[in-house]
Amino acid sequence: MKIKPLGNRILLKEIETEDTTKSGIVLPSNAKEKPYVAEVIEVGPGEIQKDGKPLKIEVKKGDKVLYSKYSGTEVKLDEEKYLIVNYSDILAILE
Amino acid sequence: MKIKPLGNRILLKEIETEDTTKSGIVLPSNAKEKPYVAEVIEVGPGEIQKDGKPLKIEVKKGDKVLYSKYSGTEVKLDEEKYLIVNYSDILAILE
Amino acid sequence: MKIKPLGNRILLKEIETEDTTKSGIVLPSNAKEKPYVAEVIEVGPGEIQKDGKPLKIEVKKGDKVLYSKYSGTEVKLDEEKYLIVNYSDILAILE
Amino acid sequence: MKIKPLGNRILLKEIETEDTTKSGIVLPSNAKEKPYVAEVIEVGPGEIQKDGKPLKIEVKKGDKVLYSKYSGTEVKLDEEKYLIVNYSDILAILE
Amino acid sequence: MKIKPLGNRILLKEIETEDTTKSGIVLPSNAKEKPYVAEVIEVGPGEIQKDGKPLKIEVKKGDKVLYSKYSGTEVKLDEEKYLIVNYSDILAILE
Amino acid sequence: MKIKPLGNRILLKEIETEDTTKSGIVLPSNAKEKPYVAEVIEVGPGEIQKDGKPLKIEVKKGDKVLYSKYSGTEVKLDEEKYLIVNYSDILAILE
Amino acid sequence: MKIKPLGNRILLKEIETEDTTKSGIVLPSNAKEKPYVAEVIEVGPGEIQKDGKPLKIEVKKGDKVLYSKYSGTEVKLDEEKYLIVNYSDILAILE
Repeated sequence: MKIKPLGNRILLKEIETEDTTKSGIVLPSNAKEKPYVAEVIEVGPGEIQKDGKPLKIEVKKGDKVLYSKYSGTEVKLDEEKYLIVNYSDILAILE
Repeated sequence: MKIKPLGNRILLKEIETEDTTKSGIVLPSNAKEKPYVAEVIEVGPGEIQKDGKPLKIEVKKGDKVLYSKYSGTEVKLDEEKYLIVNYSDILAILE
Repeated sequence: MKIKPLGNRILLKEIETEDTTKSGIVLPSNAKEKPYVAEVIEVGPGEIQKDGKPLKIEVKKGDKVLYSKYSGTEVKLDEEKYLIVNYSDILAILE
Repeated sequence: MKIKPLGNRILLKEIETEDTTKSGIVLPSNAKEKPYVAEVIEVGPGEIQKDGKPLKIEVKKGDKVLYSKYSGTEVKLDEEKYLIVNYSDILAILE
Repeated sequence: MKIKPLGNRILLKEIETEDTTKSGIVLPSNAKEKPYVAEVIEVGPGEIQKDGKPLKIEVKKGDKVLYSKYSGTEVKLDEEKYLIVNYSDILAILE
Repeated sequence: MKIKPLGNRILLKEIETEDTTKSGIVLPSNAKEKPYVAEVIEVGPGEIQKDGKPLKIEVKKGDKVLYSKYSGTEVKLDEEKYLIVNYSDILAILE
Repeated sequence: MKIKPLGNRILLKEIETEDTTKSGIVLPSNAKEKPYVAEVIEVGPGEIQKDGKPLKIEVKKGDKVLYSKYSGTEVKLDEEKYLIVNYSDILAILE
């Protein structure tokens, strides 16, 4: 079974702190709105824009991303925890 | 008798927790905004957009969907309970 | 004398609970925003859109509709009570 | 001297309760937002829309209208009291 | 020295109550939002609209206008007090 | 070193009260939102509009302007104090 | 590893107060919304606009900029602290 996000939504899987540290990102404890690191699992088709075309979404499966901490909706599938966030809550790609 | 949603509205029938568990989705109790699982019963024609065409709605009858917990309006027909939600409150399709 | 709604407004006449029950709709008492059942008496011409054409309104005289409980303005004409609501407050047609 | 409303504004003269009753309209005392009955005295030219044309206003001098109670600005001219309301606050025409 | 309003702004000079009364306008003391009478001193060029043209402003120097009481910014020039208001705060022209 | 404002921003230098008085402008102490007098030091390129062109900004270097008191961000450069305001907060040009 | 901002976001590195002072900018302590000085590290591709093209972003890598104090999200990479802000929070370029 698979979760297919709709519109501009993105399905994320949070990356554990240990992995995060290895990749060189440490989130300072005093930041007002902390970003988290996650892997992109599934990307929505993009909300239809006024010109009738879907929004171009610039992240793809497998990308490591920073996203806004207080956004999104949690969901659990086959014992794994995921997060559905809006594309606008993804701040940056880690390369 | 039938309920035909207007505009971008979708008529849903919530799927019982037992079914939900079978399908592998468990909703964690500590999520701020819990999604629910429901079956799509009827889909509105889509709100007319600025180009004069209806919004393209990407769910169809029979789809299993995740939707935002605190959205929608309850209605009962022939002893069955339904929910009318806006398309924007549907987060993902389960496949 | 007749009430002709302007723009996207719809003139409704609430259907009594008895009729409602016969038609198979029962409104649960614990719903946050209860829908009501009403008959469409008169439909506004539709608000002029950006393309210069009126909004297409998908309900017509005689339709039975579900509408949002806390919307609209009451008015009494010849001892009968009516309600003027905005088209966007009509959730679904009952067929 | 004459008051010429600008944009989408409409100059109204409230119709006395006696006249209102004769015309068959009675406003229930428990309505949250009571409509009032008034005569249209003067109609603004209509706010310029994005296509460069003025909004088409569907009321004209002499029309009897229902309007939202808590809208508008009072003004007195030659001992007569008038009300300047926005076209969007006029709910319906009485015919 | 001259004050040239920008965009949709209008420079007004309030007309004294005595003059106001002569012209037949009396503002009732119990109105929630009292209009005032003023003379138009200078008119802004009109804010550029989406079609690249300035908004057409329908008042001109010398017009007597009614405007919303709680709008605008006061300014004094050569011992005279003026008011800069937005065009949308002018309700009507007195003719 | 130079401060180049971005988008619709304008760099201003407040004109001292003495100069202000000389130029004939006195700001009354009881005004709710007092305008101030400043000289335009630098003008942003104008925010890109929907037609792909920058907003036309109608003030230029050296203009004396009235601006809204509670707007803008202060900055100090080489012992001089400046203010960065949005173009929409400039009310009028003094000529 | 590199942080690539999405849409209109800009990756900044704050410039220390000592450097700031040398460059001639001192931020007064009583300003309501203090601007800060930072160097632009990475620029997002620009949010897609209604005409299907990305927003033109007028800052580039290496630019020194003033930005709004209370905006943005902190992130740490390889012991260095960065800030991701929206382009609209950048007030001016220092040249």
